[in-house]
Amino acid sequence: VAHFPAGLSLDPSLRVDLGTQERIVYTAERLFIARSVQHVSVNEICAGAGVLKGSFYHWFSAKEDVARTVIDDVEAGYVGLLDSYERAARGPVNKIRATAEVIGESQAALAKTFRRIIGCPLGTISSELAVVEPAVAGHASAAMTRWHDRLAGHCRDAEEVGLLAPGTDPDELAGLIMATMRGMILLSRIDKLPIPVVTASMNRVLDNALRR
Amino acid sequence: VAHFPAGLSLDPSLRVDLGTQERIVYTAERLFIARSVQHVSVNEICAGAGVLKGSFYHWFSAKEDVARTVIDDVEAGYVGLLDSYERAARGPVNKIRATAEVIGESQAALAKTFRRIIGCPLGTISSELAVVEPAVAGHASAAMTRWHDRLAGHCRDAEEVGLLAPGTDPDELAGLIMATMRGMILLSRIDKLPIPVVTASMNRVLDNALRR
Repeated sequence: VAHFPAGLSLDPSLRVDLGTQERIVYTAERLFIARSVQHVSVNEICAGAGVLKGSFYHWFSAKEDVARTVIDDVEAGYVGLLDSYERAARGPVNKIRATAEVIGESQAALAKTFRRIIGCPLGTISSELAVVEPAVAGHASAAMTRWHDRLAGHCRDAEEVGLLAPGTDPDELAGLIMATMRGMILLSRIDKLPIPVVTASMNRVLDNALRR
Repeated sequence: VAHFPAGLSLDPSLRVDLGTQERIVYTAERLFIARSVQHVSVNEICAGAGVLKGSFYHWFSAKEDVARTVIDDVEAGYVGLLDSYERAARGPVNKIRATAEVIGESQAALAKTFRRIIGCPLGTISSELAVVEPAVAGHASAAMTRWHDRLAGHCRDAEEVGLLAPGTDPDELAGLIMATMRGMILLSRIDKLPIPVVTASMNRVLDNALRR
């Protein structure tokens, strides 16, 4: 299992070759995912990254500004995994299943780094910041919408070749799979539900919508 | 639409007849649901309730202690609505649908109080506190597990009388409906997805699992 997201492969304290900006982002990424954006201070990020507070504010206007870059790195990680699983998948139904495979692999990678079930950083950040930092929450949410749209494309392909049960709306099906993913990952984070149960549930929602 | 949860029907500042403990709980309930547990201080709760800090600590050891009581009040609100919708429902499939109806009614009540989509207080509190206050998060999560178990009972009843598609696991079906609820409500909170879309999705997951 490779690191997910990519930034986590870099231990900032060991990488003196990294620029100040990268050290800040990768340190913040670890801290935000381990705890939450709200529970991490700029001081902690600076201490972890080995940079002075003045340098931090040279690159970023606020902690929330770093959070946007972290969200972009998480999205890039998901897109990379999706590209690779979809390329290996034959036919639209298997391309739909790639989303569940990506959840399985990314959660395994996160569990390796943090030694517990982490949940989806995009879902967690968007939920925690929905009221107090809606613009940053929206940035995370927009990344999930792009994932939904990609999945909906495969659902429309499956419908076109007659693989979905009659009357199934492909956009709605994509929404159900994404909702199952969010809802089950939330459960896995709190109640330690194993990730294979999450991915099996996503596939079950799909199976129930296939032509029988 | 009645108030949900019940505590929100009481504006603590107008109810001098309430005891100190109740004023603290109902004030905290409003503040926690409007923002989050972490964004509300004991000072704010005391100011809103019109009680001194010494009185607060006479009744509660910490803010998290009040959060448990708030969670209990939210659960009692859900149970009351479920009782009433299930009583009116004929047959196990309609009793399963009661869960979606409860979401519709409770979210409408919350939107009336707070003038925006609030999401499920149990899900929001359990998510925000999962890492930083796992015991309180677990208290909220246990309430959702009791809801799941109640729903699973109706799913087993539906299976017994042959209403589910062959091979459908009734416990898994209850899990899918609960996951859809959590996942879609999260979306509704962040992306302003209308609540009828949430309840329609929950019913679609059920419909796809019924014998055709």
